[in-house]
Amino acid sequence: MFENKERTDIAELGEFGLIKHLTDSFKVKHESSIKGIGDDAAVMNFDGKEVLISTDLLLEGIHFDLSYVPLMHLGWKAVQVNLSDIYAMNGMPTQITVSIGLSSKFPLEAVEEIYKGIQLACDKFNIDLIGGDTSSSKQGLVISVTSIGYAEKGTVCYRNGAQEGDLVCVSGDLGGAYVGLQILEREKQIFLENPNVQPDLEGKDYIIERQLKPEGRRDIVDLLEQMKILPTAMIDVSDGLASEVLHICQQSDKGVTLYEEKIPIDPMTYQTARELGLDPTVCALNGGEDYELLFTIKQADYDKLKHDVDISIIGHITEKNSGCKMISKSNVVHELKAQGWNAFKL
Amino acid sequence: MFENKERTDIAELGEFGLIKHLTDSFKVKHESSIKGIGDDAAVMNFDGKEVLISTDLLLEGIHFDLSYVPLMHLGWKAVQVNLSDIYAMNGMPTQITVSIGLSSKFPLEAVEEIYKGIQLACDKFNIDLIGGDTSSSKQGLVISVTSIGYAEKGTVCYRNGAQEGDLVCVSGDLGGAYVGLQILEREKQIFLENPNVQPDLEGKDYIIERQLKPEGRRDIVDLLEQMKILPTAMIDVSDGLASEVLHICQQSDKGVTLYEEKIPIDPMTYQTARELGLDPTVCALNGGEDYELLFTIKQADYDKLKHDVDISIIGHITEKNSGCKMISKSNVVHELKAQGWNAFKL
Repeated sequence: MFENKERTDIAELGEFGLIKHLTDSFKVKHESSIKGIGDDAAVMNFDGKEVLISTDLLLEGIHFDLSYVPLMHLGWKAVQVNLSDIYAMNGMPTQITVSIGLSSKFPLEAVEEIYKGIQLACDKFNIDLIGGDTSSSKQGLVISVTSIGYAEKGTVCYRNGAQEGDLVCVSGDLGGAYVGLQILEREKQIFLENPNVQPDLEGKDYIIERQLKPEGRRDIVDLLEQMKILPTAMIDVSDGLASEVLHICQQSDKGVTLYEEKIPIDPMTYQTARELGLDPTVCALNGGEDYELLFTIKQADYDKLKHDVDISIIGHITEKNSGCKMISKSNVVHELKAQGWNAFKL
Repeated sequence: MFENKERTDIAELGEFGLIKHLTDSFKVKHESSIKGIGDDAAVMNFDGKEVLISTDLLLEGIHFDLSYVPLMHLGWKAVQVNLSDIYAMNGMPTQITVSIGLSSKFPLEAVEEIYKGIQLACDKFNIDLIGGDTSSSKQGLVISVTSIGYAEKGTVCYRNGAQEGDLVCVSGDLGGAYVGLQILEREKQIFLENPNVQPDLEGKDYIIERQLKPEGRRDIVDLLEQMKILPTAMIDVSDGLASEVLHICQQSDKGVTLYEEKIPIDPMTYQTARELGLDPTVCALNGGEDYELLFTIKQADYDKLKHDVDISIIGHITEKNSGCKMISKSNVVHELKAQGWNAFKL
């Protein structure tokens, strides 16, 4: 990586020089950002609003593999993953802080790539970078992102508000990011065995993008507002549909019935899962990293979104004693179990 | 570490189980904390206030050495370092998020120690733990803390407000944390050469505590409010007095004259520095990690704090062209240079 390219040693710049170099081209866009980078803390104003905050820690070798994740994509994804948590509260993210720990193997040009991805995400999603921390690291790359946002009072959607009879909705399609990861892992193994073989990703663009370049669903938050729908509960799909549905049921003290045939799976996801010997529905239930929004709405709101092609109604909330289950395409009842990603069992 | 004690494998708990286990005993204390741990994001309210946010990333082998830093102290210090940034804005921290990456060498009991330190700091400084992220790590321990706080409108102190003639003040004493670190490093080397030799820290309690168990100066923020003093500029001493004074001068577009004889140095710091062949003033100027507050006040405020034994007036702000200098005890003029800690030159 970067071996035949220009390499500038970060130590030449020092911490303050590096931060200035990396963040000079970021412009502050929000009135709520009173003071961004350059003091002990950032200063903001959110009068009349609920303030939302979420944080994620991404570690090399655990959350990403630099052998197939381009650094610019990594910067983009680190931001998106975090914004997604704010959207999941029915909020609008407005600021982020980014802390990065870098081992000496990374030249300045590598960090610039990460920040290019961060800036692309900030520009596209209208986010101010207002602070952070930069340091060397003994081993590997560490990225910590905190996002700050707001919601009008009374519009925050928690996980615990689902009521019996509510419809369970999900945006976009599921399982793609997981199947995309399997393709990247397969090609990495082939490359490790024979470095002369070029990776074969032809025709897999969509699922590779789902894995490497996800987008938080800001558009869904906007759409719900336009439709005047306030979800009764909402969560983003980071660990897999099953895990997220169970969070809503547990915190709302309810049960759920999902219908397998209603779970949205893109044809490329479906076909590639089959090629790899995987069950597409299992990929959707347990794959994770889709960053779609899963939410519950009152039945009275059904007419408002029934024609929206980007939102699927996949089930309904039941009383707690009915349990959490999925009716398969062949009409068999399965109990839903969270087998999502466990960061401590790798 | 922990070899003869109980060891519980973290993987048994899983991520959600671990977070619940570690954070169950944390109680939410602030009205501004509407929703803490347990949803996609935390929810807060700061109507009528300025919102402050600051973040730090602490990496094993860079920011701390577990061969002499007890885990409980590490948890405490990770919080304090971050709160200090909010105090440096003349603000009150109210919430933190904590993200931790753990390699498999850490059993549950080790993480519990870190959280004990975090909880002690939260309890003593009246802070709500409202979120975070927990993950395994391939290499070493990673801690990322973000603190959130507030200030009444018009009371935030930036680095850029110092005016010519303002007095330069610093709380507490300086250089102790650095000299304490030198003692810990010396004893580590002796131990590595002969593991049978017990560390000799006798009579060094104060400076060891300055290094391992620093406290952010909330009391100074309270005191300034009681005295009705609004500093014209403020910063916390994390990288060393010289570096911090230069930040204020650079951002305020001013010069400064400091007097060596006025720089507060504790007798134990002074004596130990001498024993180690170090210049105590250089330790104060370039040592860092003291987490004292450095601030400038109008001359008109002098009478209000001239008798406070915990605040030293160490110089005054000059016009920019006079430069940034220190008058030594022997009346020699030295140019101030930031030789503070560079996280990229280790």
